[in-house]
Formats: sequence, structure tokens, C-alpha cells
Amino acid sequence: MTVRAAMGLPVVGMVGGGQLSRMTHQAGIALGLSLRVLADATHDSAAQVSGAVSIGAHTSLEDLRAFAAGCEVVTFDHEHVPNDLIQALEQDGTSVHPGSVALRHAQDKLVMRERLAGLGVPVPAFCPVATLADVQGFAHHVGWPLVLKAATGGYDGKGVWVVGSADEAAEVVASGVRLLAEELVPLQRELAAVVARSPYGQAAAWPVVETVQSDGICVEVVAPAPDLSEDLALEAQSLALRLADELGVVGVLAVELFQTAEGIVVNELAMRPHNSAHWTIEGSRTSQFEQHLRAVLDYPLGATQMAAPVVVMANLLGGLEEGLDERLHMLFARDPALKVHLYGKEIKPGRKIGHVTALGGDLADVRQRAQQGAHYLRTGEWLQS
Amino acid sequence: MTVRAAMGLPVVGMVGGGQLSRMTHQAGIALGLSLRVLADATHDSAAQVSGAVSIGAHTSLEDLRAFAAGCEVVTFDHEHVPNDLIQALEQDGTSVHPGSVALRHAQDKLVMRERLAGLGVPVPAFCPVATLADVQGFAHHVGWPLVLKAATGGYDGKGVWVVGSADEAAEVVASGVRLLAEELVPLQRELAAVVARSPYGQAAAWPVVETVQSDGICVEVVAPAPDLSEDLALEAQSLALRLADELGVVGVLAVELFQTAEGIVVNELAMRPHNSAHWTIEGSRTSQFEQHLRAVLDYPLGATQMAAPVVVMANLLGGLEEGLDERLHMLFARDPALKVHLYGKEIKPGRKIGHVTALGGDLADVRQRAQQGAHYLRTGEWLQS
Repeated sequence: MTVRAAMGLPVVGMVGGGQLSRMTHQAGIALGLSLRVLADATHDSAAQVSGAVSIGAHTSLEDLRAFAAGCEVVTFDHEHVPNDLIQALEQDGTSVHPGSVALRHAQDKLVMRERLAGLGVPVPAFCPVATLADVQGFAHHVGWPLVLKAATGGYDGKGVWVVGSADEAAEVVASGVRLLAEELVPLQRELAAVVARSPYGQAAAWPVVETVQSDGICVEVVAPAPDLSEDLALEAQSLALRLADELGVVGVLAVELFQTAEGIVVNELAMRPHNSAHWTIEGSRTSQFEQHLRAVLDYPLGATQMAAPVVVMANLLGGLEEGLDERLHMLFARDPALKVHLYGKEIKPGRKIGHVTALGGDLADVRQRAQQGAHYLRTGEWLQS
Repeated sequence: MTVRAAMGLPVVGMVGGGQLSRMTHQAGIALGLSLRVLADATHDSAAQVSGAVSIGAHTSLEDLRAFAAGCEVVTFDHEHVPNDLIQALEQDGTSVHPGSVALRHAQDKLVMRERLAGLGVPVPAFCPVATLADVQGFAHHVGWPLVLKAATGGYDGKGVWVVGSADEAAEVVASGVRLLAEELVPLQRELAAVVARSPYGQAAAWPVVETVQSDGICVEVVAPAPDLSEDLALEAQSLALRLADELGVVGVLAVELFQTAEGIVVNELAMRPHNSAHWTIEGSRTSQFEQHLRAVLDYPLGATQMAAPVVVMANLLGGLEEGLDERLHMLFARDPALKVHLYGKEIKPGRKIGHVTALGGDLADVRQRAQQGAHYLRTGEWLQS
């Protein structure tokens, strides 16, 4: 399908109206594009800022088909489009990136674990579990506590339960969700290796970052990961590039990793722009949003060098519902070099409503500025420095 | 007037749907804003990418009033809104930045020259002229050739005539346009000092740049201006900051300068984001588009330090009508670190349809990359390096 916009440039459609679409649209403006967005509602984050918004359900083949008809390439800001619908679009001849075959590995944790284990990639010990007896059998090998995960539909810590006993496991099993069990990895910290790959097969990696989580949600990303050995950084990048190739990913692939005393273990995969690479907007010569567009359009990929020695992103999670504009004034006065990104979303407890990015030469200073910015926007109070 | 959007953030409206609005919208997305755009047509550069477009005439008070009713602050991407209409909006209580009093100095070259001369700022010798005899009288003082300028309405070399004789001057005078005459300044090169100022009175300056013109249109901007003495750079920045203050500018002020053997002379003023600061999108911690929004919203201004030692922007002027997408592929393959900005405009000879920005440490290399990028996108041919 060839759908062209102004200047003879292609039309990209993104399913989902969240902040990833919003920031992809922002990046696309420079490339002469105007991202088409399939959103649930006109007040969705991306729908507020795009000039080409379709309202529809990402679970409706009819809506997806109508949307795809106006696009040269269709891509996604989340993993929740049912895989059989993506297959139907592909059978229609729609160019969908990433495709249904690759995307299954980001949609179904069991499929992902089995495939990665088959490739010899380090993953936690895991096992599909349907009954409490299955969990108890697995616990016999890995001990308690262990991790239960919904095979599909989880995100930001949702769908993940650390259970310390058979009683606790019983509650999760009773929910009827399709589950897998995993060993609780004795991690030192979490890392992310983010890469992009084009249909042509070109791939590019950003520096490996450290991601800091709180209650299963990413709160901070430090680029590059402090005190990471060059060997381990190269291993993580190579692993992500290999997975992008083996799984046939087109677009951005984020590989979430656990660092342990023995090395690295793959936690999760995401095949779209990812929170662990928001720092690239100012922090890299090519942002993940521009790179995702370049990849799905099969343009040559952009340079991924860093724009500053240290870049730290802190997520803005929920916070005071009123007075954000006033806090923005105060924060800008205190730190004129901090970059603020707000998503236009209603402020709810714990919800990702934006992020801040600090850049500089000194890790402790840059980190403090990013944390300060996010904390102040959320609470209206300055951290003690 | 208080009009608030998502997250309790303000609504900014920009009159004009050109590339300056387009790039201001792009910057505003990060600030949680969704720029409202008053455009002539839905295919206008900014109208393609904004989610809040009003179609109307910038010369119609009715259209301007209807547009302003949905905005907390109104600003402009060009100088062509008649000053009396801006005054009418102000009398309605609309917050307009820059205001009518400041804007007159960017709308009427004679008003500007008289005001600057009154402030003791170096300007070329000038004189209002209505008849050929007036021109000849002025030529008696400054000699031929001299410059005739339309007092209002000119841009990109339009409305400026270098005339070598009374015969040539007669043709321009016969057009009936309101004119001023100026000496032809023996310039060594052109510079631009770009600053921003908020209603609170805070101001911030970017490094002074060299601007290279061809046929009266800017083709290249080099930041910082090579081989500019620190004294002259400071003088240019101080001059621009002083003018922003004296004229009461709110938003970005670009001061176009001639460098002569004796020092600097003011050529033109623009009170909006300006071509001479497009390099700030990647090249400065705060882009001129973000800064313009911060200024008109009376936020504290952002840091203006450079993000690389040398930044060069080259304008993309017209070029081959077909095949831009293919040329983009080739260019991205050759220079993965070049940043491309396309405006979604129909390609016409000489028209500004985009720009490219190169960043790095070596002036000759960075300059060559920017020139190469713009030349190739325009012609499909590589420059000899």
C-alpha cells in the first residue's frame, strides 16, 4: 500500500494514543511526517497534539482496517492489539511493523521465554503453571519466594506477583489468569539495552542504561549505566541486536535485563519506543522516537552517540492534581537547563504523566537534578540536597 | 483571559500556519501544550501537524477575535497581522505577545530605523523617500548604489532593491510602495544576535551566529560566528538584549546585523522565532521555539548553552519536486548524524521547504556536512568534497 502525504513523504499510523505516540508524532514532524494516531478518545495524550486522529478500538478489526487504509505503514504504541488481528492486517497486505510473528514475543511472556531459552539466551528458570500443584512442583526446584506472571496483558508491574508461599500462590492461581512461574533472580540492579532494526536488516544500539524501579514501575534511567564493564555493556548490546535479528523485529526493541553476580539475564522485551530510552530525546543524536520511525519506514538509521557524557531521566508519577503550572514556573527558575516533558494526561496516583531529563558531565549532579525536578513537580517540595 | 488545557496548563495560540508555527507546536508538545494555530488552509505547514487548527484570515478582526477566545496568550509566526487589529485584540483584554507597540518596530522599517537612531544604536544612514527627487537628494549624501526598501511587507529579500542609478530608482519609486532609502553598507559579513525576553523582564541570549545569504535569502547559519572577537560578540548580544528591553519585546527577538570594518550595524529586527536560530533545536539546551513559548507564557527562560562546539544549519530552498523521499534515504545512509527538518510544504523554486543541521567539533567538517545535506536533498547530486 502506498499512501503519501505532503512532499511525497510516507504516512505512518500508530495504534494507540498514549505518550509514546505523542512523542513519536513530535519526532515525526521533523521528518516531514504527520503521524496518524488511532486513539480511544480525543483527549488521549497523542490525540491532543496530532492533526490526524482516528477514534476507534485497537481490539476491533474493522477499526484497525479503516485506520490502516490511510497509512503506508502501521506501528504500535503498546502491545495490546490482539495478534490475530495483526495477522489479519498483514493478510490484507498492510505493512505492519513490528509484524505479528515478532510481536508475539512481546505479547506473550511464555512464548518469549521458550523462544529465548531455545536460542540459548540467559533467562530466569521458568515454567508454565495452571494449578497450585504446578507452582508447588516448580517451587521444589527454585524455592520460595518465586515470581508468578500473567503470560499476557501485564505492564508496569501489573500482572507480576512475588509470592512467598503456597497460600499466596493459591490466590493468584485462583484468579484464572494464564500464568508462568519464574525463579526470583538475585539481581544486583536492572539494565536496559535498547536497539532499533529496519526491514533491510540494519540495526543500531544506544548505550546500555541502568533502570531504577519502585513498586515495579521505572522511576529513573541513568545513561550510560554507571560502572558497567565494557565487556558486559558489549554483551548486553550484542544480545539485544541478536534478538532483534532472530525475532525479526522492525522498530525499537527494548531488552530489560537483570544484572546478577554471574552476568545478565533477560527480564522482558518491548517492541516499541520504551520508557528506558526517553533520555534519547535530548541525550542522543537520534531519539528513539525518530529511530522507530526511520526503522518502520526502512530509512537508514540515525547515529546513536550521546549528546552529553551523562544523561538521567526521571519519571513523573502522579502527584498533586492542582498547581502543576505554578510548580513548572518554580522548577524552571531553579534549573533552567532541565528538560521537562508532559504528556497531557489527567493526573492520577502513580500514573506516568511526564518525565524530566538532565544532561551534564557529573553523574551525582545530573542525577540529583533529575530527581529534584521529578520530585518537585510531583509534590511541590524540594528534596534536601 | 484564562484558558486552560490538559493538566491545567495554558493554551497558546499562534497566528500563521507556516514552519515557525509547525516547529513551535513541536516544541510545545514537551511542555504539555497543544499549540492552537490560525492558518489560511488545512494544508499549511503547521496545520498538518497540530490538533487544534482554526482556518481564518490574519487580516480579519473577526477571525482573530474568534481565535483569541480559545487562547490564554496569542503570538505570531509572521509580522503581517495589521497593527491596528493587534491593538483591537489588546483592547479586548487579550494577552498578545509581542504586543502591538513592540511589533511596530518589526512591521515598519521606517519606524524601526527612527527608533533605533533615537536610541543611539548603529544603523545605516537612512531617509524616508516618496519621490525620485527625494532619492536623488539622499544619493547626494551616500552616493550610488544605494538601497531602497519597502517600509512594510518585505521578507526574504522581497521589498529590497539595490539601485545603481536614478533610472533604476525611478522604477521602484513608480511602484507606489511606501519607501525608505538606505546607504549600501560596506559589510564584511552578516551576523545575527537572537535573544528572548519575558513579560517579567527576564532575558536570555544565544551565541551570536554568522548568517550567509544568497539573493537576499539566508542559506546557512554558523554557530557560533567563526572568528568573532569576544568583545564584538558581547556587544552584539548586549545590543539585542537592550533592544528587547527598550522596545518591550516579549518572545524571541532576532537582530540581523552587518559586520563592517568599524563594528556592527543593525539591519533588520524580527520578533518571533527566526531562521537564524533554527540551529538551536538540537544545538542549544533550549531551542528558540521552546524559549518563545516560555517567554510568551512568562515562564522562567531556559538555558541557552550550546550542545556541541560547532553547529551549522543549511536551508533547503526549493529543489527537485519529485523523489525527495528517495533522496532522504540516500542522505541518511551517507550521514546518519545529520538532522533533517522538513516543513510539509509544496516544493517550489527557491521556497524554504526545510533545513538540515550538523553538529560537531570541527568547523570545516560540520559546515561541509550541512551544505552537502541541503545540496543533495535539493538536487540529488553530491557536492565535490
